[in-house]
Amino acid sequence: MNWTVYLSGEIHTDWRDQIEQGAKARSLPVTFTSAVTDHAASDAAGDMLGAEAVGFWRDHKSSKVNGIRTRTLIERCDVAVVRFAEHYKQWNAAFDAGFCAALGKPYITLHDEDIVHPLKEVDAAAMAWAQTPQQVVEILAYVVTAR
Amino acid sequence: MNWTVYLSGEIHTDWRDQIEQGAKARSLPVTFTSAVTDHAASDAAGDMLGAEAVGFWRDHKSSKVNGIRTRTLIERCDVAVVRFAEHYKQWNAAFDAGFCAALGKPYITLHDEDIVHPLKEVDAAAMAWAQTPQQVVEILAYVVTAR
Amino acid sequence: MNWTVYLSGEIHTDWRDQIEQGAKARSLPVTFTSAVTDHAASDAAGDMLGAEAVGFWRDHKSSKVNGIRTRTLIERCDVAVVRFAEHYKQWNAAFDAGFCAALGKPYITLHDEDIVHPLKEVDAAAMAWAQTPQQVVEILAYVVTAR
Amino acid sequence: MNWTVYLSGEIHTDWRDQIEQGAKARSLPVTFTSAVTDHAASDAAGDMLGAEAVGFWRDHKSSKVNGIRTRTLIERCDVAVVRFAEHYKQWNAAFDAGFCAALGKPYITLHDEDIVHPLKEVDAAAMAWAQTPQQVVEILAYVVTAR
Amino acid sequence: MNWTVYLSGEIHTDWRDQIEQGAKARSLPVTFTSAVTDHAASDAAGDMLGAEAVGFWRDHKSSKVNGIRTRTLIERCDVAVVRFAEHYKQWNAAFDAGFCAALGKPYITLHDEDIVHPLKEVDAAAMAWAQTPQQVVEILAYVVTAR
Amino acid sequence: MNWTVYLSGEIHTDWRDQIEQGAKARSLPVTFTSAVTDHAASDAAGDMLGAEAVGFWRDHKSSKVNGIRTRTLIERCDVAVVRFAEHYKQWNAAFDAGFCAALGKPYITLHDEDIVHPLKEVDAAAMAWAQTPQQVVEILAYVVTAR
Amino acid sequence: MNWTVYLSGEIHTDWRDQIEQGAKARSLPVTFTSAVTDHAASDAAGDMLGAEAVGFWRDHKSSKVNGIRTRTLIERCDVAVVRFAEHYKQWNAAFDAGFCAALGKPYITLHDEDIVHPLKEVDAAAMAWAQTPQQVVEILAYVVTAR
Amino acid sequence: MNWTVYLSGEIHTDWRDQIEQGAKARSLPVTFTSAVTDHAASDAAGDMLGAEAVGFWRDHKSSKVNGIRTRTLIERCDVAVVRFAEHYKQWNAAFDAGFCAALGKPYITLHDEDIVHPLKEVDAAAMAWAQTPQQVVEILAYVVTAR
Repeated sequence: MNWTVYLSGEIHTDWRDQIEQGAKARSLPVTFTSAVTDHAASDAAGDMLGAEAVGFWRDHKSSKVNGIRTRTLIERCDVAVVRFAEHYKQWNAAFDAGFCAALGKPYITLHDEDIVHPLKEVDAAAMAWAQTPQQVVEILAYVVTAR
Repeated sequence: MNWTVYLSGEIHTDWRDQIEQGAKARSLPVTFTSAVTDHAASDAAGDMLGAEAVGFWRDHKSSKVNGIRTRTLIERCDVAVVRFAEHYKQWNAAFDAGFCAALGKPYITLHDEDIVHPLKEVDAAAMAWAQTPQQVVEILAYVVTAR
Repeated sequence: MNWTVYLSGEIHTDWRDQIEQGAKARSLPVTFTSAVTDHAASDAAGDMLGAEAVGFWRDHKSSKVNGIRTRTLIERCDVAVVRFAEHYKQWNAAFDAGFCAALGKPYITLHDEDIVHPLKEVDAAAMAWAQTPQQVVEILAYVVTAR
Repeated sequence: MNWTVYLSGEIHTDWRDQIEQGAKARSLPVTFTSAVTDHAASDAAGDMLGAEAVGFWRDHKSSKVNGIRTRTLIERCDVAVVRFAEHYKQWNAAFDAGFCAALGKPYITLHDEDIVHPLKEVDAAAMAWAQTPQQVVEILAYVVTAR
Repeated sequence: MNWTVYLSGEIHTDWRDQIEQGAKARSLPVTFTSAVTDHAASDAAGDMLGAEAVGFWRDHKSSKVNGIRTRTLIERCDVAVVRFAEHYKQWNAAFDAGFCAALGKPYITLHDEDIVHPLKEVDAAAMAWAQTPQQVVEILAYVVTAR
Repeated sequence: MNWTVYLSGEIHTDWRDQIEQGAKARSLPVTFTSAVTDHAASDAAGDMLGAEAVGFWRDHKSSKVNGIRTRTLIERCDVAVVRFAEHYKQWNAAFDAGFCAALGKPYITLHDEDIVHPLKEVDAAAMAWAQTPQQVVEILAYVVTAR
Repeated sequence: MNWTVYLSGEIHTDWRDQIEQGAKARSLPVTFTSAVTDHAASDAAGDMLGAEAVGFWRDHKSSKVNGIRTRTLIERCDVAVVRFAEHYKQWNAAFDAGFCAALGKPYITLHDEDIVHPLKEVDAAAMAWAQTPQQVVEILAYVVTAR
Repeated sequence: MNWTVYLSGEIHTDWRDQIEQGAKARSLPVTFTSAVTDHAASDAAGDMLGAEAVGFWRDHKSSKVNGIRTRTLIERCDVAVVRFAEHYKQWNAAFDAGFCAALGKPYITLHDEDIVHPLKEVDAAAMAWAQTPQQVVEILAYVVTAR
């Protein structure tokens, strides 16, 4: 039985790679999905539909194009991992967590201890809080293989 | 026909009061609801069930008690207003927005122009972006009274 | 037992008034709801959030503000009446019909015989096709009072 | 990961072919689905169940038979593309858009700039507005491959 | 707390009256709803939209008009009572039972013992099988008042 | 793209075989599913859990075991065909139709003209009424292959 | 804004009274609902439909009659309180908790510390664990009045 | 057509093996899924995220990690089997049954006759009550193969 895991949030470190490598090393039957993680490409996603003079609308258009991908992948996934880092706002990650919560889709948060307090509502609806990508891999291994 | 409007997010300024006063001044048939907005009370919501030694679990317990209120009120509302201010993380506000989006519940964001870019995914799923509480009142007046 | 009936579509003739007057004349326990039907006001619904230089975005902003009202009222109604006239595109009326169909919300179409063919998919998902506002009143009277 | 894309609307030009060829040229993992696009066959879909003397009922019967296909394919798709052309009423296309909106199914509109105003409600609930089939292919390529 | 009870099925005996009288005698906080039970009026429900030459379409049109009422009332009820008598086909009653079952809406069947076997699938999804209107009243009294 | 078609109702004639043979002859990508159609086996489905002295409970137990199969297959199908014959009560077939209607699952009825009137509510929620298994095959061929 | 709170579980002590009195003392806008808590009456709920010789079927019939009440009240409530005591099996209370969890309905568990381990899955999906009826009243007061 | 069967409840006897072996012996197209059934591993599921000093939170953390697996597998299954043994509380099994009931997912209970009375609510919402693993295999064989 294959599992699909959506990786949401911070794009500045290699946490996605670490989780994917860890899962591969253990041969877990997991398919990982993600938003477009190339920052510039993501910001420009709507440009292919014509340039915008106003920043708000350029962002709006790009976010909606990105939303076709993210909404579909979140609805298809079995579990999501939502990553927060201290120095970024990442309101989109918290948005994804709320979206999962409303759908009854289980998610795991991944963040350091020093942001526990501002993330308390997001963590309260999560199924687990991990501090390292390795812990995420361990949880996935346990959940998926029952060993 | 009465409308229920949930006010989510930032608790350091009087934007809720401004919206409620504005709606009252126009005699709009609107009931406003909100999370508990007293910061200390909200953080201590779980303490009545016994003290916790570990910060994470104190936060967890309080957030869940608060969640009884917030989840119920969001599901009951017709429209939500989600307020972001620049100097706060407010991941709970973005979480509420994602929750509304997944439920198909319309929401209005309220924030300054300088945080348009980090909020682009939250705004993309919103029905309107307002910059002042007065604009929110105008939208509500229009939506509710059709005038 | 009160019924709520949403009136969707064409805004150039007085069909809404005729239905509301007919229902009033028979003292039907029906509340009627509608989008904002003042054309200029509806087109300008987003202007209170700031002017837009590009036509597409002005329309976009206004339509979303209007959508807060229309989506909420459609979801709250028991029955919708969707009116089409020959000389207008009224894609929004057909959109409302599709929205109702997906929600399993019963709707009645109101249009002349000469546009039966282009409306066949919309009529196929409707519960009734009426040609006059008087017929709509008769159906509502029958449905609501069982007489 | 395979994607299914439903192509709705205008049947007089080769926009479907252009999108399908474009996707094929890029080897996108996309399956395209559609209503029956042969106009005469579609109008006659109910004739195999017996002839009808009244035009309304012939249309009704055919539309329902067609609805078995269209409703099923829309519910199964990941994304829809809804095409409008200026000289046609295409109320069925707007109906499909409303149906998608109520299901939370993302859709892209495809139409020229001169019908932006009458399509504003349909565009407001869309995830993107494209003006050419090539733009649709570009969006699909981006959304599906994340490149 | 008020309860709404939908009474579906056979229209040739006074079982509805017996239940309503019984509930009234006990002052139960119950509102009863029903399809139009005047056979001739129900068959003619679509005639107000114009005469039909073909029997199938007259029936079709009337049934859809009746469906506006029945579907809405079934979705609004808390409990349904579905009555079968031996000498009638009452496929509409069995249809209502299936509709309730799919919605997770509890229903009580009301029929004699000699039709237990052909009704076994309908009874299997019911919450109770009563043989007399008095038993239905007793169940409602118990369920509604907890005494 | 494969389609799954559930065949519900009358078990005394070979209509299922005719449809399956017709679909096979045209190489349609259709999988057919059905309740257990062996009458004696179906009535005895609960006996493997112990004998029952009372007829009602034997029927009840068997119907629930059969319901594991039928409910699952109906929920999994794309289209249902519901067959009625004049001399049988077939309340279970009407129940299945109501179940499909509530789920928004399209179904085709298959019955002779002389029972049009008692089946009017069931037909009103159907997507097509066929009189012969050959017509059902034709509809499926059209719907599934778009030719 | 009124809240409805469903009280599920153990019927041998006066915990329901304590909660209701506590809420009354604080004038909370809360309506409490419950299953029939008279043990003998609950066991005999099906007897009004005829006696049963076999224990399993008597229980079955009564449980289904009780289910009309409990399922309806759970679906209508805003919050549930689920009470477990050490010396009882109370599988119905755990069943109600699972039912609430699947519906996304928030619930509070009420039990002593010595049964924390066997209740861990039930507590994991709860919004709060209280040890005394007074704590439940405190939580309700906080949640409902925001003070 | 493959079926997925979730096995919930008691972990001290080999009933899962018996069902799986029985299904294998008959070559049934059934995939079985289960929670982690190693008691110690299940209790320690959260330990990989860091040790907890308080028993309640260790249990809480482990139960949530286990819930990622169980909730996903229950939502994916076609049928569940829920096993109760006399000497265990197994509130999690009753919780799973309630979860299935709310989702409309059919389940079979497996338990001895002497606990019929305390399980009456759980059995009332079940599709079958079996007393031996062999009976479960027989039901699955019948349901899945229609023979």
